[in-house]
Amino acid sequence: MDSITIDTINPKVLKCEYAVRGEIVTIAQKLQQDLKDNPGSHPFDEILYCNIGNPQSLAQQPITFFREVLALCDHPSILDKSETQGLFSADAIERAFQILDQIPGRATGAYSHSQGIKGLRDTIASGIEARDGFPADPNDLFLTDGASPAVHMMMQLLIRSQNDGILCPIPQYPLYSASIALHGGTLVPYYLDEQTGWGLEISELEHQLNTAKSNGIDVRALVVINPGNPTGQVLGEANQREIVEFCKKEGLVLLADEVYQENVYVPDKKFHSFKKITRSMGYGEKDISLVSFQSVSKGFYGECGKRGGYMEITGFSPEVREQIYKLASVNLCSNISGQILASLVMSPPKVGDESYESFSAEKEAVLSSLARRAQALQDALNSLEGVTCNRAEGAMYLFPRINLPDKAIKAAEVAKTAPDAFYAKLLLNATGIVVVPGSGFRQVPGTWHFRCTILPQEEKIPAIVSRLTEFHKKFMDEFCG
Amino acid sequence: MDSITIDTINPKVLKCEYAVRGEIVTIAQKLQQDLKDNPGSHPFDEILYCNIGNPQSLAQQPITFFREVLALCDHPSILDKSETQGLFSADAIERAFQILDQIPGRATGAYSHSQGIKGLRDTIASGIEARDGFPADPNDLFLTDGASPAVHMMMQLLIRSQNDGILCPIPQYPLYSASIALHGGTLVPYYLDEQTGWGLEISELEHQLNTAKSNGIDVRALVVINPGNPTGQVLGEANQREIVEFCKKEGLVLLADEVYQENVYVPDKKFHSFKKITRSMGYGEKDISLVSFQSVSKGFYGECGKRGGYMEITGFSPEVREQIYKLASVNLCSNISGQILASLVMSPPKVGDESYESFSAEKEAVLSSLARRAQALQDALNSLEGVTCNRAEGAMYLFPRINLPDKAIKAAEVAKTAPDAFYAKLLLNATGIVVVPGSGFRQVPGTWHFRCTILPQEEKIPAIVSRLTEFHKKFMDEFCG
Repeated sequence: MDSITIDTINPKVLKCEYAVRGEIVTIAQKLQQDLKDNPGSHPFDEILYCNIGNPQSLAQQPITFFREVLALCDHPSILDKSETQGLFSADAIERAFQILDQIPGRATGAYSHSQGIKGLRDTIASGIEARDGFPADPNDLFLTDGASPAVHMMMQLLIRSQNDGILCPIPQYPLYSASIALHGGTLVPYYLDEQTGWGLEISELEHQLNTAKSNGIDVRALVVINPGNPTGQVLGEANQREIVEFCKKEGLVLLADEVYQENVYVPDKKFHSFKKITRSMGYGEKDISLVSFQSVSKGFYGECGKRGGYMEITGFSPEVREQIYKLASVNLCSNISGQILASLVMSPPKVGDESYESFSAEKEAVLSSLARRAQALQDALNSLEGVTCNRAEGAMYLFPRINLPDKAIKAAEVAKTAPDAFYAKLLLNATGIVVVPGSGFRQVPGTWHFRCTILPQEEKIPAIVSRLTEFHKKFMDEFCG
Repeated sequence: MDSITIDTINPKVLKCEYAVRGEIVTIAQKLQQDLKDNPGSHPFDEILYCNIGNPQSLAQQPITFFREVLALCDHPSILDKSETQGLFSADAIERAFQILDQIPGRATGAYSHSQGIKGLRDTIASGIEARDGFPADPNDLFLTDGASPAVHMMMQLLIRSQNDGILCPIPQYPLYSASIALHGGTLVPYYLDEQTGWGLEISELEHQLNTAKSNGIDVRALVVINPGNPTGQVLGEANQREIVEFCKKEGLVLLADEVYQENVYVPDKKFHSFKKITRSMGYGEKDISLVSFQSVSKGFYGECGKRGGYMEITGFSPEVREQIYKLASVNLCSNISGQILASLVMSPPKVGDESYESFSAEKEAVLSSLARRAQALQDALNSLEGVTCNRAEGAMYLFPRINLPDKAIKAAEVAKTAPDAFYAKLLLNATGIVVVPGSGFRQVPGTWHFRCTILPQEEKIPAIVSRLTEFHKKFMDEFCG
C-alpha cells in the first residue's frame, strides 16, 4: 500500500507560496557552492543576497550591549566572578541581574508563562508607553518566536473557511499570502498606488471590501504594513487615522505589521504606531480590535536568528483572548533568549548608563548607513532605462518597477517563467545579485518589479550599482532590438 | 458593526484543548499570587508544579558545558580575551569556535537555512549515527523551536479534512489531540493496555484502523510516544518491530515522538529509535515513511526555555520533501541558540575532553536522582487506597489510576467537572500540589487517572508523599462513607 504522495497531501500546503525563499534563492545557493568548489567558474566571485531582510548575514554586527546581556543570562554563574567585570559592561551585568530576578527561580531554561515572562512583558509595556504616550498592559502582550508565529496565530483565529477574507496590501510581504493560504482563507487584495509613492487610498479599501462582500466573502481583518514591505513607504498620520476609522466603521480587526518601526530614513516622515493613533483619536478597548506585531529581527539590531518578537492585542473580549491564550499554550512558550532580547529592544540603555554612548553610536552608525545605502541604490535604479523606483522612506527594501520590453516578455513566456522572474534569474546568473521578483509579492497585473534589500555592506554598494547598471544595459540592448 | 466574538472565531480553535496548561494551572497561579500577597492564607506555603515536564522550573540546574558554549556563541567577541579562559572551560571555547566556523559569516544573529545551519545538522546526523549504528543524512533534518512546531508541520502536511485520521495512543500527550483539532483532522484512538504496563497491542491497532476505515476515515499516520507520555512505559524491541510492520503494511506514516530518549530509568529496558529498528529490519527509504521528533527540553538537560529540537524525516518523495521545506521556510528558521543546543545534546563532551568528567557527573546526578524520585513516588502512590500505578520506566511522569468512590463521582457531577479534575482540584486546594487530570490525556471511559511529574526536587519528595497520602486518606474518608 502506498503512503504519502504529492497528490495526497493537504492541498492548502501545495497552494501556499513563499517567494522570499523560492526558486531564485535555491539557484543562488547552487551558484555559491559552485564558486566554492570551482573558483572562477562564474563572472562574479560572490553571491550578494539582496533577497531577504537578514542584516547580520551581510556582516552587520550585533549591538554589543544586547549580546552582553544575552550571554550573561545564558550562563549566570559567571555573574559574580571577578573576570566578568573585565569582559562585560557594568550596566549589562546589572541588567542581567534585573532580568534574572524577573524570571521565576532565575530559570532561563524553563518554559515560561505562555504569553512570555511577566517581568519582561512589564518592561516591554513600559517601552510601548514611552514610545506612544499612552498606557500599555503587559497582559495584552504575547511574546513569540519572531513576528511570524504571531501572524499565523491571528490568521488561525480569524479564518474559518474560504469565505473568510483578509484585506492585504498589494504588493504584500508573502508571509501574509502564505499564512492565509495555509489557513484556508481568501486574500482580499487592495492595491497601493505606486504613482503616489505607494499611497494607501481609503476609496480603494472601500471598493475592494464591497467587491469581496458582493462575492460572498466575510472580510474579517485588514493588514497594514508600516513602514511598508516590500514598498518602503511610511504612512502619514492623517492616512493612519482614516484607516482606523475605516476599520472601526466596518468592524475589521486591524492587523498592524510594525516590525520596521525603527527603520525610517527620511526627515519628513515619522513612525506612529496604530495604537497611538487610535488612542489619540479617543478610541479605546471597546471601539476597535487592534493587533500590533513587533520583531527583534529588524530595526537597527537585525537579530533575525534570535527569533524574538511580540504582538500587542487590544479590543478583544475576554472569551476571545482566552482562545488566543490557548493557541499560545499549545506550543508552551517562545524561546527565552528571544523574550529577553525583545525586552532589551523596547528598553535599551538610557542616558547615564555606562553603555549609553557606545550603544547610541552603534545604533546611529547602522541607521545612517542604511539611509545612505537606500539613497545610493535608489538613485542608481532611477538612472536605469525603463526603471522607476520610489524612495525608501523606511523598512529595508526598494521595489523598483521595470518596464520590460515585449521581446523580454516573450522570451519569459518561452522559458515558462514570469517576466520579472526571468529578469531576476538573468541578473543572478550575470552578477551574483539575488533579488526577489515582484510576482512573489503580487503587483498590478501587467507591471513588473523586483524587491532589493538595502542591506549589502556600504563598501559593496558601488560594485553592486555598477554590476547592476552594466547588466541592465546589456539586457535592454538584447531585448529592445 | 461588531467585530470578532467567540461565536465568529475559527471553530477548530474552540475545539482544541490543552490540559497541561488548563484550568487547574490557572487556579494554581492564583493560589501562588495569594500566598505571595497573604502568606499563611492557605494550608501550604508553596505551589508544587507536578503538571508539566519543566525540570529547570523546579530548580534542576542546566548542564554547565552547554551553557558555556551558548554564552560564548551569543557574544563571540570575548572568545579571544584572556579573562575568558578563566571563566570558561577550554573545550567549551574550542566548541564555540567550531560552531562559529560552521555558521556562514559567523553570524549567530542571521536567519539560517530553513532546515537549520548545515554544519549543526552535520553534527546532529553524526550523533544519530553514533546512537543507532546506521547512517543519518543532514538533509533529512529539520531543526525546529522545540518538537511542537515539527509535530504541527507534519499534521498540517497530512491532514486535508476531517476524513483524514491520525492514530494516537490513549492516553496521549495533548499536543497531538490539539494539533489534530487545529488542523481539522480526526484523532483515531488506540488504547494502551494499563494491565500490561501500558502495552501497545497490534490487534488493538488493527481493530481501531478497521473501525475508522469502516467509518470512512482515511488513516494517514500512527503516532507512537516512546518512552511514553503520560504513561512512562518504554517499548520493547520486538513490539517496535511489529509496529513498523504494521505501518509498512498499512501505508501509514510513523510519527515517532522520541523526545524522552535519554530518560530511561530501569535496567531491563533500553531506548531504541524507530529509525534504528526499521534499518535493522532491512527497511530503507522506499519501504516506510518515518519521522522522529527530538527536543532539547527533555533528557537530562531539560532546556525547555531554549526551544530547540529537530525532526528527522525519511521515506518521503522529493516532491513531498519540497513541500515540507516550504512549510519550514514560511517561518524562516528556528532560533539559532536552540539549533546550537540541539547539536550539543546530540554531540556532548567525549572522553578526554576537559569537561567530560564534570559533564558526566552532572548527567549521572540528574538521571539517577530522577530514577530515585520516580521509584519513591510510584511506591507512595501504590500504597494509597484504591490507587494503582505502573512503574515509570522512562520519560518524566507517573500516571496512577484512582478508583474513585461513587459519592465522589456524584459530587463531581454536581460540581459540573470530570471526576478526576474534581480530585485534582481538591488536591491542589488542600496541598498546593498541581497534577493534570487524566481526562486531559483521554483514558478508557469510566477509568480515572492523573499525571504527576517526577520532577520536584529530591528533598521535597518526602513532604509531597506525606501531603498526598494525608489528602488521599481524608478524601476517601469523606467520599467512601
